[in-house]
Amino acid sequence: MANKPGKKSKSTSVDPKDRRREILESAARLICEKGYNGTSLRDISEACGLTKAGLYHYSRSKEHLLIEIMNYGMDIFEEQVLYQVMPISDPVERLRACMRKNVHLVTDDRTKEVTIILHEHATLTGEARAHINARKKRYVRFLESSFTEAMRDGQLRVVNPTVAAFSFLGQVLWIYKWYRADGAIGADELAAEMERLFFDGLETPPVPESKPASKERVH
Amino acid sequence: MANKPGKKSKSTSVDPKDRRREILESAARLICEKGYNGTSLRDISEACGLTKAGLYHYSRSKEHLLIEIMNYGMDIFEEQVLYQVMPISDPVERLRACMRKNVHLVTDDRTKEVTIILHEHATLTGEARAHINARKKRYVRFLESSFTEAMRDGQLRVVNPTVAAFSFLGQVLWIYKWYRADGAIGADELAAEMERLFFDGLETPPVPESKPASKERVH
Repeated sequence: MANKPGKKSKSTSVDPKDRRREILESAARLICEKGYNGTSLRDISEACGLTKAGLYHYSRSKEHLLIEIMNYGMDIFEEQVLYQVMPISDPVERLRACMRKNVHLVTDDRTKEVTIILHEHATLTGEARAHINARKKRYVRFLESSFTEAMRDGQLRVVNPTVAAFSFLGQVLWIYKWYRADGAIGADELAAEMERLFFDGLETPPVPESKPASKERVH
Repeated sequence: MANKPGKKSKSTSVDPKDRRREILESAARLICEKGYNGTSLRDISEACGLTKAGLYHYSRSKEHLLIEIMNYGMDIFEEQVLYQVMPISDPVERLRACMRKNVHLVTDDRTKEVTIILHEHATLTGEARAHINARKKRYVRFLESSFTEAMRDGQLRVVNPTVAAFSFLGQVLWIYKWYRADGAIGADELAAEMERLFFDGLETPPVPESKPASKERVH
């Protein structure tokens, strides 16, 4: 990983891309802990083992850093979730895989705070805010159109696709409010349970004997 | 409503209890807009048409005001949701009614910001924080035990009750992030759609002909 042998750094990883990620993740952690207004660039530079001038190399202002964190949050979301499931042709399979992958992203302790900032901090204004909102809206549209496709095919019951999309998101994104990686429920179990809950529902089928596989996913 | 004819007030309602509510709702709206750190007691007193001394009569500090807002949020939640549904003996009916009532509370424009503060601002510390968290936890336990009861009775499929409780909460509480009262979906439709989504699930039953009532709730 260390490909700049002439340069010394407090961090073990000196790849500039990794270093940038570390800085954004540390900054996100501090902002979540102390609030955006309560966090100074000095706090962030200290947490990253950088001088203020060193931090300036990565970001020229606190607002710019917030924009960077949010875009980084959208980048990892798109890489790890959206672009992974977009090619799945069956819309229900696509949505189920999307839920599992999004649950895994939200339970990842390394990037948890980046997700929190992405969804809790409405501090951005103007163009930067419009840009992030457009990236978020793209995900909502993807979910809505996948639900609509599955309903048109008769694979899912007909419900309002907007309500379905935001219910999906609410279930998944609320996770960071309560889930602890060291708690009783593992990330795989959580992903599987949420998928079953959301797609299969809770009510037992009217004639339980006729659907013996209802407790396990078929695919 | 005006039962103190000798006293003049900027507000049309002079009932002290109503006045306190108005102040807490205005303060919540300001804090949501400008952030807790970005809102001063002067901003709040101005928004309420009070002098700083007048506001002091209702709350002795900004932190105390935040505690008041959160307790008020829990009060209206318990009055309008929890205490309304607790007496329902059938656990599935209890949970379904609970979801409908909670959706209506979260879509209420008057108290929306109180709910946001209750779930987004982790600014409280010490005893006040512990007290609010205990009240929130009580709701989670109520949901978990209702799910467990319904599963034990065979009314619901067996899933992890904690995951079920927080999925329920996530779906409902995410509403304030996206829902607009003047948008395309009414509060009644939203409540009905969410209830169907959560309890009946999305997958069409294996033999649709055998379950003609699947698109409408039976009870």
